[in-house]
Amino acid sequence: MRDFVFHNPTKIIFGRNVLLQTGGQTASFGSKALLVSGRESLKKQGIYQAAHHSLRQAGIEVVEHAGVQPNPIVSHVQQGIALAQKNGVGIIVAVGGGSVIDSAKAIAAGALAGHDVWGFFKGKKSIKAALPVIAVPTVSGSGSETNNGMVLTNEATRQKIGIGNRYLFPKIAILDPTVTFSVPQSTTTFGAVDAFTHLLEFYLSREESFSPLQDHYSAGLMQTLMGACEGALANPRDYQSRAELMWASALALNGISAAGLGRVGFPFHLIEHSLSALHNIPHGAGLAAILPGAMAFVARKNPTRQALFATQIFGLRDADQQLLAQEGIRLFSEWLKKISAPTSLSDLNLSQKDIPALAANTQAQANLWRLREYPPEIIEAILWECL
Amino acid sequence: MRDFVFHNPTKIIFGRNVLLQTGGQTASFGSKALLVSGRESLKKQGIYQAAHHSLRQAGIEVVEHAGVQPNPIVSHVQQGIALAQKNGVGIIVAVGGGSVIDSAKAIAAGALAGHDVWGFFKGKKSIKAALPVIAVPTVSGSGSETNNGMVLTNEATRQKIGIGNRYLFPKIAILDPTVTFSVPQSTTTFGAVDAFTHLLEFYLSREESFSPLQDHYSAGLMQTLMGACEGALANPRDYQSRAELMWASALALNGISAAGLGRVGFPFHLIEHSLSALHNIPHGAGLAAILPGAMAFVARKNPTRQALFATQIFGLRDADQQLLAQEGIRLFSEWLKKISAPTSLSDLNLSQKDIPALAANTQAQANLWRLREYPPEIIEAILWECL
Repeated sequence: MRDFVFHNPTKIIFGRNVLLQTGGQTASFGSKALLVSGRESLKKQGIYQAAHHSLRQAGIEVVEHAGVQPNPIVSHVQQGIALAQKNGVGIIVAVGGGSVIDSAKAIAAGALAGHDVWGFFKGKKSIKAALPVIAVPTVSGSGSETNNGMVLTNEATRQKIGIGNRYLFPKIAILDPTVTFSVPQSTTTFGAVDAFTHLLEFYLSREESFSPLQDHYSAGLMQTLMGACEGALANPRDYQSRAELMWASALALNGISAAGLGRVGFPFHLIEHSLSALHNIPHGAGLAAILPGAMAFVARKNPTRQALFATQIFGLRDADQQLLAQEGIRLFSEWLKKISAPTSLSDLNLSQKDIPALAANTQAQANLWRLREYPPEIIEAILWECL
Repeated sequence: MRDFVFHNPTKIIFGRNVLLQTGGQTASFGSKALLVSGRESLKKQGIYQAAHHSLRQAGIEVVEHAGVQPNPIVSHVQQGIALAQKNGVGIIVAVGGGSVIDSAKAIAAGALAGHDVWGFFKGKKSIKAALPVIAVPTVSGSGSETNNGMVLTNEATRQKIGIGNRYLFPKIAILDPTVTFSVPQSTTTFGAVDAFTHLLEFYLSREESFSPLQDHYSAGLMQTLMGACEGALANPRDYQSRAELMWASALALNGISAAGLGRVGFPFHLIEHSLSALHNIPHGAGLAAILPGAMAFVARKNPTRQALFATQIFGLRDADQQLLAQEGIRLFSEWLKKISAPTSLSDLNLSQKDIPALAANTQAQANLWRLREYPPEIIEAILWECL
C-alpha cells in the first residue's frame, strides 16, 4: 500500500424525501443562494420546484442559473460566476447530474477568484477558497456530489480538463434516491456503467494485487452496482435498488477506492471523452462500448488482474489465468447486453476508419492531463480491441 | 436501506513514518498541546519520544499526561482535564491505543465543559464543543482514531459507558503502520479480532439481507483483516499486512459499515465488556472466546445471515442454510485457533458457574445503553453456547 492522505469532509444526508431538507441544510451557510440546474426535464418532474420551494421556505433568497448542459462548458460557468458576484450570493446549490454539480463547484471557486476561472483548469492558478456548495444529485453515477473533482470543457480551445482541489468538496450532499425514480432507463444504465468504470479503472490499473483491501472494496461495489442496475431497470420505483445505485456511486469515487494505490489514471475515461467529443455519444454509452475491448487488452498485458475480476465479480475459478480472464469478460459483455448497453464501437456505428482520429484526440488529452503512460500506440491498440 | 446521515471529517495521513509529521500537523491547530499516552511500552520502542520530538520541533509546547490504562477510567481523564485547563492547552494529542484516544476525546470535550465530564456519559449533558484532537494510534483495532465514539469506565460507580458525538472526530489521524511493527503478537491478534467483530456485529444483526452493498463492504474488510492478521503474525515487520490491519480497522468503524442499517447494537461487545470487567481479560481475547458460540446462537435464530457469512468469507456453497452456517462457524473457529486466540469460555478457564454473574452484568449494561432487544434469557442463551 502506498502512502496517502484521505480527507472527505462532505456531510451526507441520505434517504427518502431528504430533498425537502435542501433549504434547512443550506440555511446554515447563508441566506442567498445561486441555484444551478440543467435542462427542463427536472422541472417536468417537480424536483426542481421542490428544491426551490424548500430553499424559499427556509428564508433563502434564490438566484437561478439554469441550462447546464451534459459535458458542461466554461462559458456557462462564467455566466454563473458573474451572476453570483453581481448578486452577492454566499452559497451555491446544485440540483442535477454530475455536469450541474461540476459547474456549481467551478462557480463556487471562480466567484472568489480575482481572475478567469479557466486559469484553474490550465494549472496556472490554484484554488485557495470557494463558496460552500450544496449538492443535490438527481441521477446516480458521477460521484461528483461527494468528491473534490470537476471536469469542464472550453468550447473555444476544444479542451476538456478535470481538476481536483480540497475546497471543492460539497459541504452537504443531499442524496434522495426517490428523485431518481423517473430518470430515463438509459440514464440509469449509463450512470451505473460510469460508476462501475470509476471502480474498474483503479481495480485493473494495478500491476499486482498489492492491496487486497481495495480489491475487496471495489469488487463489492461493482457487484452491488450490477445487481442494483438490473433491479432499477426492472422496477424504476424500487427504492432499495435506487438507494444502492446512489450510495455505491458516491462510495465509488469518494477517495477510498483510490487510497493507497499511488498515482492512478483513467485511461478508459480518457478514450471515452474522445468518443463523446467527436461523436456526441452519452458518457456511459461510450464507456460501455469500450469496456469489453479495453478488458481484453488488459487481459493480454496483465491476465492476473482480469482473472481476479472474473473470480471476484462472477465467482469463477480456473487454473488458467487467461481462460479465466476471457470468461469474465464474456460474462461482463453479456451483462452489458442485458442492460441494453453497447459493447463495442460497432454498436455505436463506428468502425476502424474512426480509430486514427479517436486515438489522436485521446493522445492530446493524455498530454494535457500529463498521463505519460498512454502513448498513441497503446491507445490505438485498445481501440482496435473495441471494434 | 434505512435513511442515514454520514459525516466523517477526520483527515487521515497514512504511510511509512508519518509519525514524524505529528508536530507539523498539530501546529496548524495551536501551539500548546496535552500529550496523552498510556503505559511505558511505547517509550521503550522510541515511538513516544519520536512524537514528542516532532511536536517540539514544530514549536509546540507539550504538557504530558501519561498512564492511561486499558479500559480507561474517568478519574484519570478528570486529571487530564485539570491539567489541560491549568496549562491552557489548545490541542489534545493522543499517542497510543484505543483507550488513549478515547481518553483524549473525553479530555477534549471535558476541558471546554463547565461541569464534570461524566455528565456526558450519564446522558445528562450534551457535548457542544471540544478541543481539537490529533490521534496517533500505535495499535490497530479499535477504530477510535477515525470515529466519534469513546468508552470510559467510572471506577466509583462500576459503569462502563460509550457515547458518540460529532465534536469527537479527531481533526487528524496519523496512521503509521510501522509503529505497530513491535506490538506483542497477542496485541496484533486481539486488535484484528476487535475490528473484525465491529464489522461482524452489524453484518449479523440484520434480520434480512436488505443491503447487499454493506454486506460486500463488510465481508471484504473481514477477509482483509483475517489475511493481514496472519501475515503480520508470520512476519511482524511486513508493512503490507500492518498497513491493511491499520486501514481496515479504521474503515471498519468509521460510519460506513453502519450507514443505512438503522439502529444497530453491539451485543457481542456488551457481553465481552462483562467478561473484561469481571475476569480482567483483554478485550480482543474476550471477543474471540464468545464469537463461535455467539455465531451458533445467531445461526439457530437466523441461519441465512450466518450462511451468507460462510459464502462471503469462505466461498462455501450449500443448499442447506443450516449446514452452510455450521461449516462457516467451524472454519472461523479454526482460524481463531490458527492465530492463537481462544474460541470458548473454557479456553479462558471459565465454566457454567460463571454464567449467571456474566449475564447479570451484561444485562445491567444493556439497560444502561438502553438496548431493549437483549433480555437476560437471550444473553444467558448466548453464553451457554460459548462454553
